[in-house]
Amino acid sequence: MTATVHPLRPEKPSLKPLMALVAPGLNAVNRVILERMQSPVALIPELAGHLIAGGGKRMRPMLTLGCAAALDYQGERHHKLAAAVEFIHTATLLHDDVVDGSDLRRGRATANTIWGNEASVLVGDFLFSRSFELMVEDGSLKVLKILSHASAVIAEGEVHQLTAQRVVETSEDSYLQIIQAKTAALFSAACQIAAVVSEQDDATEASVEAYGRNLGIAFQLVDDAIDYVSDAETMGKDIGDDFRDGKVTLPVILAYARGDEVARKFWQRAMTGRANGEAELQEAIERLHSTGAIADTMARARLYGSRAIDSLSRLPATAARAALIETVEFAIQRAY
Amino acid sequence: MTATVHPLRPEKPSLKPLMALVAPGLNAVNRVILERMQSPVALIPELAGHLIAGGGKRMRPMLTLGCAAALDYQGERHHKLAAAVEFIHTATLLHDDVVDGSDLRRGRATANTIWGNEASVLVGDFLFSRSFELMVEDGSLKVLKILSHASAVIAEGEVHQLTAQRVVETSEDSYLQIIQAKTAALFSAACQIAAVVSEQDDATEASVEAYGRNLGIAFQLVDDAIDYVSDAETMGKDIGDDFRDGKVTLPVILAYARGDEVARKFWQRAMTGRANGEAELQEAIERLHSTGAIADTMARARLYGSRAIDSLSRLPATAARAALIETVEFAIQRAY
Repeated sequence: MTATVHPLRPEKPSLKPLMALVAPGLNAVNRVILERMQSPVALIPELAGHLIAGGGKRMRPMLTLGCAAALDYQGERHHKLAAAVEFIHTATLLHDDVVDGSDLRRGRATANTIWGNEASVLVGDFLFSRSFELMVEDGSLKVLKILSHASAVIAEGEVHQLTAQRVVETSEDSYLQIIQAKTAALFSAACQIAAVVSEQDDATEASVEAYGRNLGIAFQLVDDAIDYVSDAETMGKDIGDDFRDGKVTLPVILAYARGDEVARKFWQRAMTGRANGEAELQEAIERLHSTGAIADTMARARLYGSRAIDSLSRLPATAARAALIETVEFAIQRAY
Repeated sequence: MTATVHPLRPEKPSLKPLMALVAPGLNAVNRVILERMQSPVALIPELAGHLIAGGGKRMRPMLTLGCAAALDYQGERHHKLAAAVEFIHTATLLHDDVVDGSDLRRGRATANTIWGNEASVLVGDFLFSRSFELMVEDGSLKVLKILSHASAVIAEGEVHQLTAQRVVETSEDSYLQIIQAKTAALFSAACQIAAVVSEQDDATEASVEAYGRNLGIAFQLVDDAIDYVSDAETMGKDIGDDFRDGKVTLPVILAYARGDEVARKFWQRAMTGRANGEAELQEAIERLHSTGAIADTMARARLYGSRAIDSLSRLPATAARAALIETVEFAIQRAY
């Protein structure tokens, strides 16, 4: 006879609890999205639809809905606002793919590859404007303030990242600033607006804001690690994308900082695109593992993940809160 | 002895009366612009400053200020809002130059030529977000509605124009839709918000909105004509820019519609870039004049100009109103 092992957590954490929690709300959000991306100019819904219907997880709208559920919000204002958040995110992705010259996103051809950079820039602008129209319809100046500020911070972070591109001496602090801006700001805003519509006190609003912000940082750090451990089939993202683009992410920053003269030469040549082929990618992965750079990127991700979870402590212990907590665990463990 | 001629209007209409009227306000607007385009990410003020300080006339902020003066507004809210309008305009120009691949604007190298398309896209996004932050600070949901809607209309018009690019069979109606969206919408919004801050009745608000809209259309039509009659030295715009880019503007639409088989072949080859060199540009100019296409584009510009002037009839006959009227006359006569 074999002994039966009873692990404390029999299954890997997943997004399923959050998805089940928000499913009805997400249908409503999707209806708003589909309705409001329409335009008599046919290219707009065609291009926007490619990305919007293209297998995105709707992570940010799910967070708005999940936080609203955890705060026991009974209204429907957050449907329109979650759609506005997704429009901002979609506009950002369209512009990002132009800026990065990306061919693939989530395993599919990018909009810029199919319709050209020009169309991607302009349809992004349209979605961005449309998101503000949705917020104005809702009518909360506080929500408008949160999301217009988040948008400015995102754009600022993207420009910052552009100037740091291929600069391997980027500090960890500087890198954290970039991802706080380009990823965490919208996660944080998506959660915070749930507290605003449900008229929570400042401390509760700050709690869900901190949840979103820390989850966003953890999420991005794991993304950065995944680029060196995953493959296109599982994640819809080619392994080594960041490497080939010369994107100086935390794993590279740590490996560079810890490396000797030879290692630093290697990273400099790789990040500036002078030597970044398949052989160099394999060498990079070895260096990232041998210096502990991947493991320590993940350790930092776990740290921010814990902060995200801890920040929910003042919320009532409901199934909704449990789903938000498991979402953090999923975000961190999806890499492995 | 020679007889002295006393023309009814001794000088050509100019922007001077409007500029004199709004000079103090425009200084305040410029201070807001300079202050609010700052960022710790140095590339943002550098790139934005290149365009913002680069000899633009501040036409749209001047219209906000001019309309506010004509409505006897005594407050200062419009300074921030005029800056927001200029930020939207600047963001649009940055993205336009990327979309069109332009090298020159107002006789200077474009931002995308100096800093690259990536930076232009992202700094445009930043300015756009910042404009909404300014509006949120002002706190009027009505202004937010007007400007978020104008922004969506502009982007929609730009995508429409992109799909009509090089399509010489574009109808005059379709073309008017495009310029209503990409030019007139922001002129109109710039004027309308002056009525909103000064709390005018709906009819007065509609008057200045119509003034801005019709002026915007006239302005764009004259711009389209200028591209075939002006030169880089006088306008900071190379003659034939639209021709070389295959931009199907009203002069071309009219010449094509009125042309025989040979003429239509010529325009088709020119607009699709198969034959658009210096010799063809000269032939285009001849065809535009011989078919009356330039003259009739100007006739339409004058029509919209008259509408702009007539729409001011319910405003008191002040020096400010006279300056707004002369601005229309300037917009139309600057071509000659």
